[in-house]
Amino acid sequence: MAVYTDVNEEELSSFLTSYPVGDLLSYKGIAEGTENSNYLLHTTGGSFILTLYEKRVNADDLPFFLGLMQHLAQSGVECPLPVARQDGALVGQLAGRHAALITFLEGMWLRKPAAVHCRAVGAALANLHIAGSSFPMARTNSMGVPEWHRLWEGSREEADTVEPGLREELDREMSIIDTQWPGDLPSGIVHADLFPDNVFFLGDQVSGLIDFYFACNDAFAYDIAICLNAWCFEKDFSFNLTKGVALLAGYQSVRPLEEIEVEALPVLVRGAALRFQLSRLYDWLNIPDGPLVKKRDPLEYMRKLRAHRHIRSAKEYGWTPVASIAAAS
Amino acid sequence: MAVYTDVNEEELSSFLTSYPVGDLLSYKGIAEGTENSNYLLHTTGGSFILTLYEKRVNADDLPFFLGLMQHLAQSGVECPLPVARQDGALVGQLAGRHAALITFLEGMWLRKPAAVHCRAVGAALANLHIAGSSFPMARTNSMGVPEWHRLWEGSREEADTVEPGLREELDREMSIIDTQWPGDLPSGIVHADLFPDNVFFLGDQVSGLIDFYFACNDAFAYDIAICLNAWCFEKDFSFNLTKGVALLAGYQSVRPLEEIEVEALPVLVRGAALRFQLSRLYDWLNIPDGPLVKKRDPLEYMRKLRAHRHIRSAKEYGWTPVASIAAAS
Repeated sequence: MAVYTDVNEEELSSFLTSYPVGDLLSYKGIAEGTENSNYLLHTTGGSFILTLYEKRVNADDLPFFLGLMQHLAQSGVECPLPVARQDGALVGQLAGRHAALITFLEGMWLRKPAAVHCRAVGAALANLHIAGSSFPMARTNSMGVPEWHRLWEGSREEADTVEPGLREELDREMSIIDTQWPGDLPSGIVHADLFPDNVFFLGDQVSGLIDFYFACNDAFAYDIAICLNAWCFEKDFSFNLTKGVALLAGYQSVRPLEEIEVEALPVLVRGAALRFQLSRLYDWLNIPDGPLVKKRDPLEYMRKLRAHRHIRSAKEYGWTPVASIAAAS
Repeated sequence: MAVYTDVNEEELSSFLTSYPVGDLLSYKGIAEGTENSNYLLHTTGGSFILTLYEKRVNADDLPFFLGLMQHLAQSGVECPLPVARQDGALVGQLAGRHAALITFLEGMWLRKPAAVHCRAVGAALANLHIAGSSFPMARTNSMGVPEWHRLWEGSREEADTVEPGLREELDREMSIIDTQWPGDLPSGIVHADLFPDNVFFLGDQVSGLIDFYFACNDAFAYDIAICLNAWCFEKDFSFNLTKGVALLAGYQSVRPLEEIEVEALPVLVRGAALRFQLSRLYDWLNIPDGPLVKKRDPLEYMRKLRAHRHIRSAKEYGWTPVASIAAAS
């Protein structure tokens, strides 16, 4: 929620001469994203988002992220198209940062998504998975299980200062994941961070998926598990089954789940909650307070994790076989 | 530099039905302004700025501020036009705040203004002073000399913690202002905060003056004095005479200064520096740190104030009689 790097008009105008976007008319720092600095630009060629990559993004990953967005947009997925420079490159340099210009997508992210939106985001996620299958690059999930161990090692000693008993509780969760985490699931390109603020809607239609800076190769069903956590809980941390049904039906309307994925779903959902629990706890304990830092609740995902413990099958998240969806509709 | 109040799409769309602006396409919180929350909206009717007024703005002043912007825009001053609701009102309610919708002005504020821009801003300020003379409402300057005393009372005891000796030095400045502050200068509507981030340019032309939330009735020359402080100093706190000459010549190309204003200019410039020194010092000492607060240097204006002590006449700020400007051009 911040602009970390200021840009002056002269250097921005000069930067834009490398892009086929016309002349600069205005630019405003926008309060979106937590990792990078973003500006909304108006030029004589239209509206664009300028992103300056701050230190948390590894510059070596930028060709993957931007190439993926280009590939997906050209494959019909509603996502921003990185604008290529006159020399063909997707990444430039501005104000001492790597920088990219992407097309601006109209649409709003929903503070209170309803079931109809969960269905739409499920379908959009499946489209992304299918379109990603022809993308030639690959990237390991930098927020996969090995990283959870590192985050936990960096938080464990102080965990009980956040809530008494948290250390023992998360130790148990870590060992469950270590013994039960599934291998060999259908895999490919996943978004890995498809929270409501990364999905734009116009009316009930998805108009854009944004923020591909955690995208990587991983199990498709793990991406669904992240969405179930991010989209289907109420403010009181109860799981809304209607939204779960809608999200999974939307997904399966495009890509039906295989049996092995259905069986793995409960542990994947629990693991996805653990992943966000661990990264937020780590940030809470390790990132100093500052004028530009707005830390997130370090226990939100703990509450979701506890809800997941009572769930044993994908059906309890709203999964139904494709045949019965077809029969019901 | 923050968005204090979040708005959801539903309440925003509902709010907009009272305005003749079409349908909402997108809205982004923007990192501009320090007092209020601002969003850049795209609708089917164009681009707009939505402002939610936070507690530092007195709601009773909104009819003055918005009415003034409307009057100035309709008088040909380049400034945003408040969009009237279907019921004629300029102020609405959104997310528990007073809110207004104003037209979006293309243009960029300049991080490094040059003399040509200082000339343009001088002329724009004079146009504002002239156009404001037919505005029927009035507002006392809430940041006038009586307020300086209150700010100083709230900072004086702790001033030396910011810099040893500051208390004695500012005591002296306060007593100079108390004995030398001029009355009876030509007065009317002034902007009172025309810093570079409140002036948009397209090329070398002023495309918009924004942020009228300190506007009030005061001496025109005091408004010039604020601009000399805000536009004509270099990063090393040296006064750039070329910029001073340009700003004053630009102003006088529209409205020549009267002799009484020329004589008062040195004390007005010194007082203007004191006004920003006092408000920043007060904020530094009295506003708690927080994730959304980015406090400004509490000594920047002290350094400018010290530079002013060596100046005795308006000529040293770049003033020349109108006759000699005409002769030289």
